[in-house]
Amino acid sequence: MKEVLRPLWQLTASQASTLMQQGRLSSEQYVRACLDRIAEREPQVKAWAHVDADTALAQARACDAQPRRSALHGIPVGLKDVIRSFDQPTRFNSPIYANHRPNEDAHSAEVLRLHGAVILGKLQTLEFACGGQFPPTCNPWDLARTPGGSSSGSGAAVADGMVPLALGTQTGGSTIRPAAFCGAVGMKPTWGRIPFDGIKSFAAHLDTVGLFARSADDLALLLEAYALLETEPPGVPPLRQLKLAVCRTPLWAQAEAVAQYAFAAFLERLRAAGVQLSELAWPEELAAINTWQDEVMQDGGRSAFLPELLKAPELLHQDFKNKLSNHLQLTPAGMRLALDRIAQARMTFESAMGDADAVIGLSAPGPAPLGLHSQGMATFNRLWTALQVPCISLPLLWSPEGLPMGLQLIHRRYEDHRLVTVARTLESALYEERHPWN
Amino acid sequence: MKEVLRPLWQLTASQASTLMQQGRLSSEQYVRACLDRIAEREPQVKAWAHVDADTALAQARACDAQPRRSALHGIPVGLKDVIRSFDQPTRFNSPIYANHRPNEDAHSAEVLRLHGAVILGKLQTLEFACGGQFPPTCNPWDLARTPGGSSSGSGAAVADGMVPLALGTQTGGSTIRPAAFCGAVGMKPTWGRIPFDGIKSFAAHLDTVGLFARSADDLALLLEAYALLETEPPGVPPLRQLKLAVCRTPLWAQAEAVAQYAFAAFLERLRAAGVQLSELAWPEELAAINTWQDEVMQDGGRSAFLPELLKAPELLHQDFKNKLSNHLQLTPAGMRLALDRIAQARMTFESAMGDADAVIGLSAPGPAPLGLHSQGMATFNRLWTALQVPCISLPLLWSPEGLPMGLQLIHRRYEDHRLVTVARTLESALYEERHPWN
Repeated sequence: MKEVLRPLWQLTASQASTLMQQGRLSSEQYVRACLDRIAEREPQVKAWAHVDADTALAQARACDAQPRRSALHGIPVGLKDVIRSFDQPTRFNSPIYANHRPNEDAHSAEVLRLHGAVILGKLQTLEFACGGQFPPTCNPWDLARTPGGSSSGSGAAVADGMVPLALGTQTGGSTIRPAAFCGAVGMKPTWGRIPFDGIKSFAAHLDTVGLFARSADDLALLLEAYALLETEPPGVPPLRQLKLAVCRTPLWAQAEAVAQYAFAAFLERLRAAGVQLSELAWPEELAAINTWQDEVMQDGGRSAFLPELLKAPELLHQDFKNKLSNHLQLTPAGMRLALDRIAQARMTFESAMGDADAVIGLSAPGPAPLGLHSQGMATFNRLWTALQVPCISLPLLWSPEGLPMGLQLIHRRYEDHRLVTVARTLESALYEERHPWN
Repeated sequence: MKEVLRPLWQLTASQASTLMQQGRLSSEQYVRACLDRIAEREPQVKAWAHVDADTALAQARACDAQPRRSALHGIPVGLKDVIRSFDQPTRFNSPIYANHRPNEDAHSAEVLRLHGAVILGKLQTLEFACGGQFPPTCNPWDLARTPGGSSSGSGAAVADGMVPLALGTQTGGSTIRPAAFCGAVGMKPTWGRIPFDGIKSFAAHLDTVGLFARSADDLALLLEAYALLETEPPGVPPLRQLKLAVCRTPLWAQAEAVAQYAFAAFLERLRAAGVQLSELAWPEELAAINTWQDEVMQDGGRSAFLPELLKAPELLHQDFKNKLSNHLQLTPAGMRLALDRIAQARMTFESAMGDADAVIGLSAPGPAPLGLHSQGMATFNRLWTALQVPCISLPLLWSPEGLPMGLQLIHRRYEDHRLVTVARTLESALYEERHPWN
């Protein structure tokens, strides 16, 4: 009963879902609570590109009138504004698309809607999830700090209690980074498992749908909707038999002292809890992986933004024109080299994981930096995006001033289910609830 | 002047473009000629899922009234009916989408339109370019034979003079196969270089936009529109200094005798023309590549068709339900193995190419088979799709009864420009015009 005594908007999706199943909460009540939270906080946080209370409440009432379709039935979800939705604008934070209203849902949005989810609204993004214009979004923990990007609104809205679940994307660090900076739970599933249909693309080898929630249990709800849970339960051992491989990556020196310190202290907690820790040393010859990732990402932009260059060059930010003009002077041979080294790194990494139940590292080099015209660094994201492996950021590390920093969990490709199970184990043992509103 | 004495619909896009530039042909005339050809042949060939003469002519007249934007200005293009277009239905040959009218162009269609192309209509496809319902399309060379699939309408319409250019897709053999069976020029560019945005996806690792034309010159027009031509000209030598590597693949025994014979005879023609031929032996350990490709393709279907399973299971063909139920019992470890072996094969193949200007082989195991409830085999396509390398099919091989069989040219990833240049060299020296209407 204690959940219902808290403001309804504080419920996680799983908690709300249980209450709805028991007939103690309606979708309309829950959605209304989220809309109230948005009304209260949005003037400061600026997470939303579009919310239309009438459209959201109409969906909620329709859900309440129908038989429950899944655990997501009646649960509100926000969409990063590069993900199409048939009943709301999709603007990519680009002036070219100021009046853009596609009449279809993206695959990732439609699947949630077909499970009964309510599409609450569209969340702020860096222009085309890529560059150019920054969103106005602030970090709910400290309005002077960036929420991280490019899924800025998704991270901020979920962490701030405006919506329990959201979708984003990741091509560099666009899901794990804002999840870490905002203290949300974020997941980048294995590349390609959730189709990118209906989302503005940036770089085909890297573009991945991202998931945002306030608990690992809620991530599991989303994975279930996308049919990413295997039929065989993965059988992850309990905390004190868990084997985790610590991967500092070749870029550890770029982590801030506070992050290194919090990570080391967290490892001590894990050891004290009986977790077996090993070291996963990143092979010397793969040290340049972030450079290869960047080449693949920049090359993607050469074709992704061609329509915008052709139809409205005057409204396209210079960042995109640079990509289109191949300012890095990428060559066919250079692209093959980058892609093949990444392919080799994938095999090397996954083999080096050995019998570990997951790999752990930092989600970001530190807490959210000050200023809204930066997204922070994607140092500890680009390599995993390049490897196409599933990653989860959990709010288990904190700076001395109380800002969230993410612990990142990584697994082999296609082990999304296992990874979520490890995240649930860690969360249930080691997470103490901390929210911007506490 | 000889071009204009032929029926206008027989012009290639490049020929029509030159005439338009000279002010001797209008887009409206050319589009009208194509519409006349469609009116004449469509009752037999059944290539189109949708043509609306008024919409097409309105676009053509608008082009005629505007300054020329590119060599494609005023040129009609057909779209496989899995590629969205804002002004025409997109139905995927699925009863679920019988009334489907997206209000946006797919990226690949929009780029052509922004270059001034006229979107003439939508072309027949196998259901979702994947399985289930066959299209009614017939092979223009022999109406009792399949045009090949899944881009059945694209291959048939272009080869039969109904439209000079078309887009299709390839996930297994869906572009090169119908191009070969219909005697069109087909190209599967390097994976990912033309974004798949706005096209129904099937398997992310494989899905590729395909190009159809009646000459390699016309392919170059399309590549130019997509900015796939490098700034540096590739410098391919003339025919008698060309080095080609012959790759029979481990599946040569599956080629029909007529195809093997025509291929051998063609090699003699090449030798006689002074082309240096070498053998590219497919490494033993990579012999199972078509199986790995199939696993990756089937796994893609597990997520691609989830919305349709959720919203209209009764209208979804059993083929798709099988994919969604993981009837191959694919496992995470199995998927990684398939993907990593393919990645290794990519490096092995590209290294084995040595200093060859292109690799050549068969586009298909023989001419189009009899019957409309088969697409023919993708034996000589799946491996190249898996490798993500660019391929072109040229109508340079013919069966004794006069049916087209494709010669396939293959290159390393990102060498789309070089490959088209080699195709132009071969075409200009060795192609004799043969069309279904001759």
